[in-house]
Amino acid sequence: MGPLATADLLIKIVTMTKADCDNDHIRVFVDDNSAIPDRTGAILHGGPDPVPEMLSALRNLEKCGADCLLMPCNTAHYYLPRLQRETAIPFLNVLTVTAGRCRELFPGKTAAILATTGALATGLYQEALAAEGVSYLVPDEDEQRKLMHLIYDLVKASLPLHPEKHLWQEVLEGMRQRGADYFILGCTELPIVASTLELDGPFLDPTAELARAAILYCGYEVKE
Amino acid sequence: MGPLATADLLIKIVTMTKADCDNDHIRVFVDDNSAIPDRTGAILHGGPDPVPEMLSALRNLEKCGADCLLMPCNTAHYYLPRLQRETAIPFLNVLTVTAGRCRELFPGKTAAILATTGALATGLYQEALAAEGVSYLVPDEDEQRKLMHLIYDLVKASLPLHPEKHLWQEVLEGMRQRGADYFILGCTELPIVASTLELDGPFLDPTAELARAAILYCGYEVKE
Repeated sequence: MGPLATADLLIKIVTMTKADCDNDHIRVFVDDNSAIPDRTGAILHGGPDPVPEMLSALRNLEKCGADCLLMPCNTAHYYLPRLQRETAIPFLNVLTVTAGRCRELFPGKTAAILATTGALATGLYQEALAAEGVSYLVPDEDEQRKLMHLIYDLVKASLPLHPEKHLWQEVLEGMRQRGADYFILGCTELPIVASTLELDGPFLDPTAELARAAILYCGYEVKE
Repeated sequence: MGPLATADLLIKIVTMTKADCDNDHIRVFVDDNSAIPDRTGAILHGGPDPVPEMLSALRNLEKCGADCLLMPCNTAHYYLPRLQRETAIPFLNVLTVTAGRCRELFPGKTAAILATTGALATGLYQEALAAEGVSYLVPDEDEQRKLMHLIYDLVKASLPLHPEKHLWQEVLEGMRQRGADYFILGCTELPIVASTLELDGPFLDPTAELARAAILYCGYEVKE
């Protein structure tokens, strides 16, 4: 729900849909609601509850006639059960979609979960991966501090990433040394970090997997 | 209203807004309505009227509570008077916004209007520039054919642009030789062509100018 992450999801839906002209695309409604309070702040530090503003967006998408709902914020999925109870429109869940794709694309390998401190504290990614039999590890305290700096102080603040490229490299190398075979970019700001800083993964991009799930759910084809 | 052009406008609004965190951004509603029939087809070839599907999107944006309306399609501005009569929410007009910026940024210089055959046939860009005292020239028949190929057969068909880079170069060089000092990327697919193919302009990007106008209209600051 960072606004750049929202645009990133929209671009992925558009570019991953098999289409020859404008009219071959999926109709997509967006409520890029910048008033939604910070999710990590709410989960860990008693910050304002984000659900009322999320519901405001949900009601708008209902009025527009959406057939399924996507939340371009992994951390926000902590609130998904509360939101799902409020609407008959199904949410596509980025955590379960991602876990299923980990099993398919990296069988027998170990995932590094790169996510916000709030998302990791909820244990939801860990549970989703465990349910698919995917082994994983999480960042240590120092790596997590570096990730949060990249997400909050740079991407969300619209600042250039390159001066801090070494931090991204340190996180990836440290986790690779501890046994990670691939990296889940489990915060919607992280695909932006990965594509900007261009270091080796391999990476699994939950935003792209959510776009893929939406394209298939809506009855369209994913571009080869 | 090409879906990639819609995403491009959203990204420009986000990245051009002065903001330190998610909550500093503008709330943006999008109806990326892929059912809107082709505008050039309607203007020139008696294709289906796009207004009913445009109105469908307009009604959704009204229900969401939008304070101003943006159409990420220069050609579609032909229909703006019909649409404006249907709603009390003001449209920001990409043609007049662009013409004003031409005068400010390139005083005394000659603009090349790069736009669809449909947009050029309406004469709306020409009128908007003339009203600001901006001198301009339009592509010749061969250049126009090349532009339409880049817009329709490549960007709108999600195909790679680089194999046809020479066409873009030929359009720019031909118009420069005929007296163009700078180029108006007056079809929302063309900023994507220009940023992908990285040839010298200078360019004026109406999508970015529309984003800038929206940021200011909404009372936010444009990032330096």
